[in-house]
Amino acid sequence: MSSTILLIHCPDQPGLIYKITQVIFQHNLNIISNGEFVERNFNHFFMRTEFSGTVNEEDFLQKLKTILPSDAFIKLSVRQKRDVAILVTKEHHCLSDLLTRNAFNELDANIQCVISNHQNLQDLTSKFDVPFYFVPADGLEREQHEEKVSHVLRQYNPEFLVLAKYMRILSPSFIRKFNNRIINIHHSFLPAFVGANPYHQAYDRGVKIIGATAHFVNDSLDEGPIIAQSVIPVAHSHSAKEMAQAGRDVEKIVLARSLKLVLSDSVFVYRNRTIIFD
Amino acid sequence: MSSTILLIHCPDQPGLIYKITQVIFQHNLNIISNGEFVERNFNHFFMRTEFSGTVNEEDFLQKLKTILPSDAFIKLSVRQKRDVAILVTKEHHCLSDLLTRNAFNELDANIQCVISNHQNLQDLTSKFDVPFYFVPADGLEREQHEEKVSHVLRQYNPEFLVLAKYMRILSPSFIRKFNNRIINIHHSFLPAFVGANPYHQAYDRGVKIIGATAHFVNDSLDEGPIIAQSVIPVAHSHSAKEMAQAGRDVEKIVLARSLKLVLSDSVFVYRNRTIIFD
Amino acid sequence: MSSTILLIHCPDQPGLIYKITQVIFQHNLNIISNGEFVERNFNHFFMRTEFSGTVNEEDFLQKLKTILPSDAFIKLSVRQKRDVAILVTKEHHCLSDLLTRNAFNELDANIQCVISNHQNLQDLTSKFDVPFYFVPADGLEREQHEEKVSHVLRQYNPEFLVLAKYMRILSPSFIRKFNNRIINIHHSFLPAFVGANPYHQAYDRGVKIIGATAHFVNDSLDEGPIIAQSVIPVAHSHSAKEMAQAGRDVEKIVLARSLKLVLSDSVFVYRNRTIIFD
Amino acid sequence: MSSTILLIHCPDQPGLIYKITQVIFQHNLNIISNGEFVERNFNHFFMRTEFSGTVNEEDFLQKLKTILPSDAFIKLSVRQKRDVAILVTKEHHCLSDLLTRNAFNELDANIQCVISNHQNLQDLTSKFDVPFYFVPADGLEREQHEEKVSHVLRQYNPEFLVLAKYMRILSPSFIRKFNNRIINIHHSFLPAFVGANPYHQAYDRGVKIIGATAHFVNDSLDEGPIIAQSVIPVAHSHSAKEMAQAGRDVEKIVLARSLKLVLSDSVFVYRNRTIIFD
Repeated sequence: MSSTILLIHCPDQPGLIYKITQVIFQHNLNIISNGEFVERNFNHFFMRTEFSGTVNEEDFLQKLKTILPSDAFIKLSVRQKRDVAILVTKEHHCLSDLLTRNAFNELDANIQCVISNHQNLQDLTSKFDVPFYFVPADGLEREQHEEKVSHVLRQYNPEFLVLAKYMRILSPSFIRKFNNRIINIHHSFLPAFVGANPYHQAYDRGVKIIGATAHFVNDSLDEGPIIAQSVIPVAHSHSAKEMAQAGRDVEKIVLARSLKLVLSDSVFVYRNRTIIFD
Repeated sequence: MSSTILLIHCPDQPGLIYKITQVIFQHNLNIISNGEFVERNFNHFFMRTEFSGTVNEEDFLQKLKTILPSDAFIKLSVRQKRDVAILVTKEHHCLSDLLTRNAFNELDANIQCVISNHQNLQDLTSKFDVPFYFVPADGLEREQHEEKVSHVLRQYNPEFLVLAKYMRILSPSFIRKFNNRIINIHHSFLPAFVGANPYHQAYDRGVKIIGATAHFVNDSLDEGPIIAQSVIPVAHSHSAKEMAQAGRDVEKIVLARSLKLVLSDSVFVYRNRTIIFD
Repeated sequence: MSSTILLIHCPDQPGLIYKITQVIFQHNLNIISNGEFVERNFNHFFMRTEFSGTVNEEDFLQKLKTILPSDAFIKLSVRQKRDVAILVTKEHHCLSDLLTRNAFNELDANIQCVISNHQNLQDLTSKFDVPFYFVPADGLEREQHEEKVSHVLRQYNPEFLVLAKYMRILSPSFIRKFNNRIINIHHSFLPAFVGANPYHQAYDRGVKIIGATAHFVNDSLDEGPIIAQSVIPVAHSHSAKEMAQAGRDVEKIVLARSLKLVLSDSVFVYRNRTIIFD
Repeated sequence: MSSTILLIHCPDQPGLIYKITQVIFQHNLNIISNGEFVERNFNHFFMRTEFSGTVNEEDFLQKLKTILPSDAFIKLSVRQKRDVAILVTKEHHCLSDLLTRNAFNELDANIQCVISNHQNLQDLTSKFDVPFYFVPADGLEREQHEEKVSHVLRQYNPEFLVLAKYMRILSPSFIRKFNNRIINIHHSFLPAFVGANPYHQAYDRGVKIIGATAHFVNDSLDEGPIIAQSVIPVAHSHSAKEMAQAGRDVEKIVLARSLKLVLSDSVFVYRNRTIIFD
């Protein structure tokens, strides 16, 4: 039987857990898992509850509103596969990983389509019977290209966009349409490097660790609330190319792990941070 | 102002969080942090709540008992430094780490004394003005030696014993006196090795990772519920001695981290597993 | 231009590096990379040299033999793609990873075929135009089944066998035919668990870390010289199923990394340990 | 018996290993361990050889010079404890770790003195019978303060300076006096943060990993060739203070590991990278 997920965040005040769980109890809903967290810098309260039972949504939300602060965020959603579109450029490793996981039903996703500004990954995508859209960017302004991408997306109306090594910057107006619903995977290093050829920069500096960061996209491509991070050790004997390969291995695992969290409604975003109930 | 920690575990049933937080709310106590977990294999409920406010302990516990199953575990404790005794043999790394952290007030512990079957660590302990008891085991039966150790411990009545590389097996009768209150640090390997000279075994097998496990002690020295684990990579070029040094570095960090969890009442033990609210 | 790899191991004696590099220098070969290691417990010398230039193999090996101890191991091989057969059972994650890496030319392998005692992975394998052989084991003795597997392998004569979650024990006589040429991926835990349902055992014990070990197969399935290991942290909140998923993520990365090492002739096996020149 | 370490780096050319090991062989020196590496971007050759036997230093270096390029770097040193001075500010964790390791003879160092611009760590240092110099910086120009520090250092003439959480910037002229002989430990994050209160920045951004980087100091405090790095996972539930504590645990282990490498002459610096023979 399917379960329902309730997300709430609001300014903290005494008695919130008591009042919320009272509403749940009085609706004869059975809590499967429950998590709360209070961010102490801003005294902000977060709660994720997963419950079973048939919920009268209108009445339930009405009751919650009467006991919560007026500016509370409330989201109620049935646990089910979420519609996802994937944007890629040329590198296959993240897409390969997502497509094979999905083929064996390990992602809570319905991968609706793959969109790319290059054709390199068309064959791979087709093997898994997922529609592939080649939307070249050559000679187009950024907004023109995004409009073509948006045209494809409007056919599918995905809940989430996954940037699986999509190497183009998205415009703020595009991003706003998918507020906290675009997940990007970004290489990361200690110390961090920006700009072109990060792996060559990492090699030149002789880093001993290579990482990856999955995050929501906000105004700029590589910023935004962090969902998951991991690292892998490297050595001076690794070439920039070998460091890049090591980085790809981390990237695909971190991206898949962050998708699992996002697609199960386990991630809050608040003031550019994530609060994660794992 | 000091806070109070409430630990509850009992068979799961609908409405537990609601009923417990109602009692807290009605006693005008202010929840600082709250965590629940339901172990699904046994449908067992765990809750750790930290709150501020003045609690009428007798009345509060009475109210909780009326709403909880009769076999519920309930523990109420003020957050404060806990009395700890440390048992060691010859290796200094864990004791050095604990004594220096404690000297700078980073452990929530009152280290009452150090007991050892060797004298190697007497000088170190004395530097930090902690009483050191040399309790030699030579020529004694295990129970005889433990009785001498117990004699020292009775002077201090510690809440927790820390085995900071104490290389002797404790008898079941000794362990029972400190049920889930003895923390041990144990080397660990992938694959695991038992018996003498584990680092030589690890070297011979050519492991690429060395780890450490902090755990409560139950019937045998190296079993018992796991509190924290960590690892460090090694290579074929490391000698058994270098592997041991790498292992010591992991051991001391893992032991300190697990103590922080235990001394803040963040760890439940249930059916040989720990449930940790971090 | 292709390069050549020279592997030597023998009892250590003074002057070995000097004498070997003299032979290389006198044959006008240009060292690209060079590594030596002396195992101190047995005073055994290991050297891996990769060089460019045209080598008169017969003369070169003859010269080496005159300067090396008579029981020296010497192997000369051109760096090129190695023929590999993959054995699987039902789980797809390692096979998916190898097939997609190979499709994008990231493995130094020629994957000749996939053999399985189940049909689950036939579709996946076919997507990548690799022959799939379903060799059921039902009702067969172990040796009978292995003979059928061997019959397929004889068509291809692979240099290496990869057990990508092949859940059957291989007989000693089968293993001997591929001495140090079978690579297996094995879950690993701290502490280690043997027998059925390792992830349920790991859950029951409440481990905080899950790992994976890639190793050569010798007499028994899960022993043999370790090539690579890695770990991932887990928590009490993860179910046995989630621990298994975390474990699969580690397994596929560790297996791919170990294959890269083996297929580039970077791994020596000596007395049940690996010496790795990375 | 003590051993000798030979470090060479120079432009690569055919036959270098052969020619160098010939000189070693002809001087009847017995190689204990040997490592070479060629940096391919600049075709630069690195070699570290540790050997036993009595070496006529003058004649040996003379022979090496005749066979090596004229701009070769050659360093010959006996393996022995190196003289080290430690600079600290207020935080104890790295100093505690180094002093306790040293007290049990685990560092290849002779810690000559500890210098600080604060008095917090005087008691700790005195426990271990190491001279402590309080050199306040209040009201002094940077160069004036450094001159006072240099005055102390001139009494001891240390080979290496260890900045064990020394929170002051060193001037280029001071650094030049200890070219590649100052080791610093620096917090690091994914993504990296600069400026004041890095742990508050890390908290605000919600990082999931905290790291540490040990490096040689060159022109600026937090740049310079990286010697070792490591990380530790954190979560949204950790306060900035708890992140800082986790960071300190990593810092002290990484600093100790990097010192072990540096004090055993295992680290080359070349074009702002390290080449490490571990």
